[in-house]
Amino acid sequence: MDIRHDRIARVQQSMREQGVVAIMIMNHDDFRYLFGEDRSQPRAIVPATGPVEIVAFAGEEPELTAGLDDGRVQVFTTVGGQIHDVVERLNEIAKAADTTPGERPKVGMQQWFDTPAFLVDMFRKVNPGLELVTSDAVMDPLRGIKDPGELAHMTEAQRIAGLGMDRVRELLRPGVTAHEVVTEALYVMMKAGAESTSTPLWANFGIESCMLHGRQSPAPLKAGELAIIDLTPQVQGYCANLARTFVLGEPDERQQGLFDAYLEAVEAVRAAMVPGATPARLDEVAGEVYARHDLAQFHVYGIGHGLGLRFEETPAPTIIPPHKSVPMREGMTVTIGHPVLAIPGFGGARFEDVYRVTPEGGQILSPYPVEPVVAI
Amino acid sequence: MDIRHDRIARVQQSMREQGVVAIMIMNHDDFRYLFGEDRSQPRAIVPATGPVEIVAFAGEEPELTAGLDDGRVQVFTTVGGQIHDVVERLNEIAKAADTTPGERPKVGMQQWFDTPAFLVDMFRKVNPGLELVTSDAVMDPLRGIKDPGELAHMTEAQRIAGLGMDRVRELLRPGVTAHEVVTEALYVMMKAGAESTSTPLWANFGIESCMLHGRQSPAPLKAGELAIIDLTPQVQGYCANLARTFVLGEPDERQQGLFDAYLEAVEAVRAAMVPGATPARLDEVAGEVYARHDLAQFHVYGIGHGLGLRFEETPAPTIIPPHKSVPMREGMTVTIGHPVLAIPGFGGARFEDVYRVTPEGGQILSPYPVEPVVAI
Repeated sequence: MDIRHDRIARVQQSMREQGVVAIMIMNHDDFRYLFGEDRSQPRAIVPATGPVEIVAFAGEEPELTAGLDDGRVQVFTTVGGQIHDVVERLNEIAKAADTTPGERPKVGMQQWFDTPAFLVDMFRKVNPGLELVTSDAVMDPLRGIKDPGELAHMTEAQRIAGLGMDRVRELLRPGVTAHEVVTEALYVMMKAGAESTSTPLWANFGIESCMLHGRQSPAPLKAGELAIIDLTPQVQGYCANLARTFVLGEPDERQQGLFDAYLEAVEAVRAAMVPGATPARLDEVAGEVYARHDLAQFHVYGIGHGLGLRFEETPAPTIIPPHKSVPMREGMTVTIGHPVLAIPGFGGARFEDVYRVTPEGGQILSPYPVEPVVAI
Repeated sequence: MDIRHDRIARVQQSMREQGVVAIMIMNHDDFRYLFGEDRSQPRAIVPATGPVEIVAFAGEEPELTAGLDDGRVQVFTTVGGQIHDVVERLNEIAKAADTTPGERPKVGMQQWFDTPAFLVDMFRKVNPGLELVTSDAVMDPLRGIKDPGELAHMTEAQRIAGLGMDRVRELLRPGVTAHEVVTEALYVMMKAGAESTSTPLWANFGIESCMLHGRQSPAPLKAGELAIIDLTPQVQGYCANLARTFVLGEPDERQQGLFDAYLEAVEAVRAAMVPGATPARLDEVAGEVYARHDLAQFHVYGIGHGLGLRFEETPAPTIIPPHKSVPMREGMTVTIGHPVLAIPGFGGARFEDVYRVTPEGGQILSPYPVEPVVAI
């Protein structure tokens, strides 16, 4: 394992500053951030001070321990009664910690889609002496700024998404199914080195281009229809996000109008994506463009979102509304092009790429052509 | 949409019996069970009485409403403030319901991996007048028994897993990578009609065959090594689960011993999988076989789990310990072969298939060969 002791040290420093005695890691993204690789059931205990412990099952102990030789990371094994054993360990850590009298020791856990309510409720029930808090306040500020190694993985993931989109474009013709498009794009991206995708791949055809979220449309593509394709390969856990809208044949006036408005909005938002800008401000910028195109009534907020080891990271204003006012910092990686601009009952368009926040505006990680018209 | 009014009626009947005034659906499996197809962001409100409401965004309303013509299902649209709008609607339903005075009206939500803690916490915070309960007590008994249409989808999914495993077998040779095996198997299964997989595909090579959970092993396969492959394609949302262990070349004595013990345990458990048998009893049966093979110390509990529109359904004893004593019912679909039988530091084996519970024991959905030895 390529354990990131530098990151662990920064996490522990922040935990001490925030009075968090331990973080219970139960998700792929934080696990990979600290330990440099993933496990199917990622579990680790990070105390504010002292060795980090990877939680594993007894049968996995020999090969895990073999990779850890200086005691800074240890393996904590359990057979079956994982929750019970981990809870006991957390209580030991909490007792040893120097907590303010009268206050319950704070244990952090990521509060995102991967942390299920039933486990949290069980944790609270068996740990009445501990206060469960979000670990996001510790992890997000550290994870938000990508280092050069992370940027390289993200750029590669985005490049691979482009290879998938090249294949999509070859396949778009009357009668093709969303399932065929998705199957072939996934195969090309995995052959190119993607280990997986962070979301199901989406191909929305025709009227389904109005959907705020994607799926594999059931009806085959027809001439004249819009098709929105959203590709999300992952490389070393790092996520890509590339969406393009195509039209099969010459676009009509309303279709062209959606393309023009969206692409103008993307460019305006890109220019405004400087340190200090908030998602709310970027949405204002997009909204001003839509208003000039007489499309303001179709503006859905949330023009972009943070992206990294998790598909949506801070700021993720469509998931966590207070993120609307989180200012961008230099070095964050953020998408532009998240929501569809759709005329209900007609169709919609979106073009999404990943950008790095710089004082000169968003810098695209891996440019990919915008060529919506597919000749038939 | 192929809306299942029969199922909705049974769900509402059970809700009234259990005193649940509404269920908030936020997961793919329950959504598909009731509405016959999936949405990327599945959201619906099921009141104990009256029309069910699919929650969608305003731009999606026209095509959704077009598919619903008799008022028994309605579309509830919202723009952006989905949580706020849904909460208001649930409060209206709760007020109209005939709840025992002094008791908070009960609203159900699935309590499984797909229901994140941060949404549940937010829900509780903005709904102090409602009591959040699990909807599993309503849904699980109904979903547990598969009807003929469901069995057909599950059998097809399992057949497609077999096509993937055929491809895996062709590829296993010294130097092949887990990523290559997984990429090709996924492609074959999607070409054959799988829309996706319910878990990442796993290929554990060599010492990593000891891992309780799978991943894509980083090191290429070597002669003499064990390889465990676990395939989980989905058809119309229904999950398959096919795992096989292979050895590259002639197995040594310990490897052969693991195969023999596991396969004997599978057969004993299959015979014991009759209505009324509990997961705990099935694990006893497996344990007796392992003891005869002098492998009892390596027995990890949880020989099988329910499977259907969710990859793990009731009974899922390794996730929810009280499920150990849930009796099987005729018509349930349950796997045998979930945990690895592994000698730490050496290697492990498992062979997993899906069975239907019958009075004659487990009936395999789609037989697939057990031929662990790959000639080199």
